[in-house]
Amino acid sequence: MDLNILLFQDFETLDVFGPVEIFGLLKEEFNLKFYSANGGIIISNQGVKVLTEEWTYIDESGILMIPGGQGTRKLVEDVDYIHHLKDLAEKSKYCLTVCTGSGLLAKTGILKEKEATSNKIAFDWAKSMDTEVKWIKKARWVVDGKFYTSSGVSAGMDMALGFIADRLGKDRAVEIAVHIEYIWNSNKEYDIFAKDE
Amino acid sequence: MDLNILLFQDFETLDVFGPVEIFGLLKEEFNLKFYSANGGIIISNQGVKVLTEEWTYIDESGILMIPGGQGTRKLVEDVDYIHHLKDLAEKSKYCLTVCTGSGLLAKTGILKEKEATSNKIAFDWAKSMDTEVKWIKKARWVVDGKFYTSSGVSAGMDMALGFIADRLGKDRAVEIAVHIEYIWNSNKEYDIFAKDE
Repeated sequence: MDLNILLFQDFETLDVFGPVEIFGLLKEEFNLKFYSANGGIIISNQGVKVLTEEWTYIDESGILMIPGGQGTRKLVEDVDYIHHLKDLAEKSKYCLTVCTGSGLLAKTGILKEKEATSNKIAFDWAKSMDTEVKWIKKARWVVDGKFYTSSGVSAGMDMALGFIADRLGKDRAVEIAVHIEYIWNSNKEYDIFAKDE
Repeated sequence: MDLNILLFQDFETLDVFGPVEIFGLLKEEFNLKFYSANGGIIISNQGVKVLTEEWTYIDESGILMIPGGQGTRKLVEDVDYIHHLKDLAEKSKYCLTVCTGSGLLAKTGILKEKEATSNKIAFDWAKSMDTEVKWIKKARWVVDGKFYTSSGVSAGMDMALGFIADRLGKDRAVEIAVHIEYIWNSNKEYDIFAKDE
């Protein structure tokens, strides 16, 4: 199945490449593709220059992955972008967001009445994108139907492993975590970065 | 200070972009630059296409970072590459390796009599690059003078935070870890992936 990764200027590096490391090890199951609105080189917040294809070429039946980062702040103001993103998210089999990517997706209205999370630092911003989303602050990641949303940056890796556990079994996820010597926070409700409020 | 990141075909994605996420947040302290032997687009083992400059343009006085990945297996056979890598590593102020990047650096001979580590799966391969290195299997990362070497893939992030702690203080490293919601394995000797032998 295609994993369609949506990049934009000033995306957060690890939001993308944490999950990419994990899904990219399952070459028989996932076909990783990098897209952006106009294609070409996209530069992350940390200065990584990544080559992408235009998003018109996406096979929409795959998995859509939306990272966060400073770039989301501008995109939520772009009506055409949000309109096309909504269409992509609706048609995708699964839709995964990392960090403030949850806010970007929420802006499309597609998360209304659904449970979702985002990172701690920009949680209020994400919430303000759609107050009818059932925002959950204390969660490493949240699953609601086809939507997987994660907390800040590194939580995207835990969610990616959680997604793999749900599709291919937990043993497979653990195997990958050990392979990349990653200490997997496998309980999605366990979140040391959420303060009790 | 420049952080010169050395890419090559089939590098391991997270070996690079884990540390890049962390160093890239300290824009006043580190200037991230991506190089390869010939410049141009380099493709990671997980299919990420990254734009690089030719390594002849490196300001050698900076920090050199060498990732691992399948691509290392070919490079250790390339005499000219190893020769130039040795020169770069000698001139660099600090030299950081992740995963099998330690084996690649060891091949230059520069780690002789120094303590170093590498990932678990390819540990014997790394060792075989230079048996006179004091290889340490149970370590998240190892510091010997200007050389920082880490275990597999994800351990590169712990090492990056460790490097920052050594240079800028532990508070600064913790601040970054919290910012990216990363559970930092801050004790470099604590390594759950090493089995007692």
